[in-house]
Amino acid sequence: MSTDTPERDLVLTRLIPASRDKLYRAWTDPALLKRWFAPKPYTVPEAELDVRPGGANRVVMQDPQGNTFPNHGVYLEVVENERLVVTDAYVRAWEPSQKPFMTLILTFEEAEGGTRYTARVRHWTEADRAAHEAMGFHEGWGRCADQLTELVATL
Amino acid sequence: MSTDTPERDLVLTRLIPASRDKLYRAWTDPALLKRWFAPKPYTVPEAELDVRPGGANRVVMQDPQGNTFPNHGVYLEVVENERLVVTDAYVRAWEPSQKPFMTLILTFEEAEGGTRYTARVRHWTEADRAAHEAMGFHEGWGRCADQLTELVATL
Repeated sequence: MSTDTPERDLVLTRLIPASRDKLYRAWTDPALLKRWFAPKPYTVPEAELDVRPGGANRVVMQDPQGNTFPNHGVYLEVVENERLVVTDAYVRAWEPSQKPFMTLILTFEEAEGGTRYTARVRHWTEADRAAHEAMGFHEGWGRCADQLTELVATL
Repeated sequence: MSTDTPERDLVLTRLIPASRDKLYRAWTDPALLKRWFAPKPYTVPEAELDVRPGGANRVVMQDPQGNTFPNHGVYLEVVENERLVVTDAYVRAWEPSQKPFMTLILTFEEAEGGTRYTARVRHWTEADRAAHEAMGFHEGWGRCADQLTELVATL
């Protein structure tokens, strides 16, 4: 499943010294998500997460100047403590978004020393993958993964 | 839910004198689907339907000259006898297709005289909706609805 479209995927993976349930909570509890989901100095003033297949999420990011950037998505698959799949192809079930850009496949696997955390971002086109990489995917998601790691250490 | 994107939707609706479960079977049993899903003289030589959220389907249509046209999709929502949602944005869970074109929302509602059958086809763009209409959506889906009506009368 995970390696059949490598030319359209961007992947971040980390071994994080925390249990799977804490990482899952950090992704599904809005109060926790707000604390790590945007690379500082960006913030997340609003997060609504209806975590079930067909449920919508809405996460607003804000830059230091106060500009806000709302993001919408719909969960496609939810397996507690193990796996989340969410796409921006829909704004809510099943209203197509303006532009299907990506599907995020998150997995939390038990591993020696903690949890193997993998975020696979799958795009519809190679051009979108390239654009996402050029927008700073690796740096942005890497910084967020640092923030996530710090947060779950406190849970 | 059903009326928030009318400018991107194509809709077929019929009152069909049959119970909801027969219509649902005609959509979910491959042997039955093959008998009505393509407007004659087209045929459906192959149909594989993994009817569950995240399950894939593959339906091959064939023209009288023997040319075949495979269609792939993934079920997003499955409520027995009531509702099916399937999209061609994925080939299988969760591999993006070459072109996200439509999401089909099928509903089967109890009504005086049978079942209110509604197929709402929702596109990502107004251009795709227009192209689909120009390709003969209303005639094609109308003829298939006739074939479906004939089939369920025999069940």
